[in-house]
Amino acid sequence: MSAGPAAFFPRIFGHEAAGVVESVGENVEEVKEGDFVLPVFNADCGECRDCKSTKSNNCSKFITHRYRHVMPRDGTSRFRDKNGELVHHFLGVSSFTEYTVVDVSCVVKITREIPVDRACLLSCGVPTGVGAASKVAKVEAGSTVAIFGLGTVGLAVAEGARLCKASKIIGVDLNPEKFELGKIFGLTDFINPANCGDKTVIEVIKEMTDGGADYCFECIGLSSVMKDAFDSSRQGWGKTVILGVEMHGSPISLNSYDLLKGRSVLGSLFGGLRSKHDIPLLIDKYINKELHLDEFITNEVRFQEINKAFELLEQGKSLRCIIWMDN
Amino acid sequence: MSAGPAAFFPRIFGHEAAGVVESVGENVEEVKEGDFVLPVFNADCGECRDCKSTKSNNCSKFITHRYRHVMPRDGTSRFRDKNGELVHHFLGVSSFTEYTVVDVSCVVKITREIPVDRACLLSCGVPTGVGAASKVAKVEAGSTVAIFGLGTVGLAVAEGARLCKASKIIGVDLNPEKFELGKIFGLTDFINPANCGDKTVIEVIKEMTDGGADYCFECIGLSSVMKDAFDSSRQGWGKTVILGVEMHGSPISLNSYDLLKGRSVLGSLFGGLRSKHDIPLLIDKYINKELHLDEFITNEVRFQEINKAFELLEQGKSLRCIIWMDN
Repeated sequence: MSAGPAAFFPRIFGHEAAGVVESVGENVEEVKEGDFVLPVFNADCGECRDCKSTKSNNCSKFITHRYRHVMPRDGTSRFRDKNGELVHHFLGVSSFTEYTVVDVSCVVKITREIPVDRACLLSCGVPTGVGAASKVAKVEAGSTVAIFGLGTVGLAVAEGARLCKASKIIGVDLNPEKFELGKIFGLTDFINPANCGDKTVIEVIKEMTDGGADYCFECIGLSSVMKDAFDSSRQGWGKTVILGVEMHGSPISLNSYDLLKGRSVLGSLFGGLRSKHDIPLLIDKYINKELHLDEFITNEVRFQEINKAFELLEQGKSLRCIIWMDN
Repeated sequence: MSAGPAAFFPRIFGHEAAGVVESVGENVEEVKEGDFVLPVFNADCGECRDCKSTKSNNCSKFITHRYRHVMPRDGTSRFRDKNGELVHHFLGVSSFTEYTVVDVSCVVKITREIPVDRACLLSCGVPTGVGAASKVAKVEAGSTVAIFGLGTVGLAVAEGARLCKASKIIGVDLNPEKFELGKIFGLTDFINPANCGDKTVIEVIKEMTDGGADYCFECIGLSSVMKDAFDSSRQGWGKTVILGVEMHGSPISLNSYDLLKGRSVLGSLFGGLRSKHDIPLLIDKYINKELHLDEFITNEVRFQEINKAFELLEQGKSLRCIIWMDN
């Protein structure tokens, strides 16, 4: 229950992608050769207690799957290196490869009306943010929102809050360039924690929102920031949604008196969305020009140059880098 | 924001009561001499942003009132001892006295159809528990509930869960007598943490509920138990409601990975209820024989013997002791 994902090496990384079904295994009827699909780390088996519930998106049949380094049903790896040695899967997807093998519970059939280099954004990061705002927090029209961390996930939270018609969407990030970038996704205000003078980010947010934001989102993965997000939420009804995966495994520590004043903390993976049901709905929104996707794409590289993408990420210069795979 | 209530001495304790209005101050129109009323610590001014919202019961006009030792509008105390020295108020109520002075925002006019020794139970403890189940957690029919601590508040949570038609209501308490007592309030199962053998309470609850309770409630005020409650909640949709006021001011510490799996933590005072709107509804439920109240009363003493009530409480032998006041 309490441990983060275990790492198995060697493995094939990559968990956001779009592709075409090359072949299917026995008993697979949901997709067929030639279908356009998204692989997703968050399984949606449709059979377990969670997948039959409207309240969960945490498939309990393949609950450990997302951390698994092998196929969830038979425990085998389908990858070998050129010497025949075993190579592990990653998050049930492993998309940094020309061909991968994915359980059908982790595949979503989608329309070809959306380009492949837009569709792949709906495989994890964008739904995680949009769903956190619209489905987990249920941001209300006219409300105030504070987002800690403006990577793709944080900006997708802004996009979700924009779609929910929030009136004030405050981004918090150490990179001031994120404000301009974020305006298209609905950001109305920006706080650089390095420029708050004598004040804390919490104090600045409380001033900007008449006492605290209605909805706060942590999109970094630091327990200290999770606490800041909580402390920035308004008494009476403030909701804090945790999206970040804590990078040191540290617990989140909250003042229980502040909880008693009507605040709440919610966690979610994949924005609380059900992959097979909700991704097609997001695609419809993109096609109808309601949902922004194009603007998340800051770079494109060929698969042979994939390390350039990692360098851009490390430099904080990239939101999403499309990696083109030849076939 | 972060501190617990400050204590001012000397003061007059007592915050659960029922009584009759003896006189009213200037501009008070809501109640008049002779009205039957409940004093409540949780202000309901009807004018501030919180009181105008349907989402909050944390009056922000008198936000510090509940911890205040004086009247909220003019900052005076209305009590003096026999030497004329100032005596402080307590929680805006101070009911252990023949006469008290209460702001009109902390008074609820009620019907005389409910006996005085039943009505007073609706002044804090019972609404706090019933509301936590019905309004804060919104317990669903057929769901599983675990309650940590079976004092009046914990048993009132059970009563609320029973009214919401929960199918399994598990009480956790070190006093085994609480199970029999709690059955009338809907308890279906009982765990004595001292008798769990090699297992933790968390493990026992997970076994009894096929993976974790749908709703967990902390009604003690210990951060370690708050964590146990959270850890006993089911992935995917488990809600943990904090009712207990942490007795050492310790923060609550949660594993953020467990939050990410769809769990949430909610805090509330007074069960999330709006005093003036919701107490009359609870009285209707009592009169209609839907809500149990009589069974919370375990003892009665006269005001002159009030210390007997404290002794009974300390011995863990009492839920609610009615203290009769002569007039």
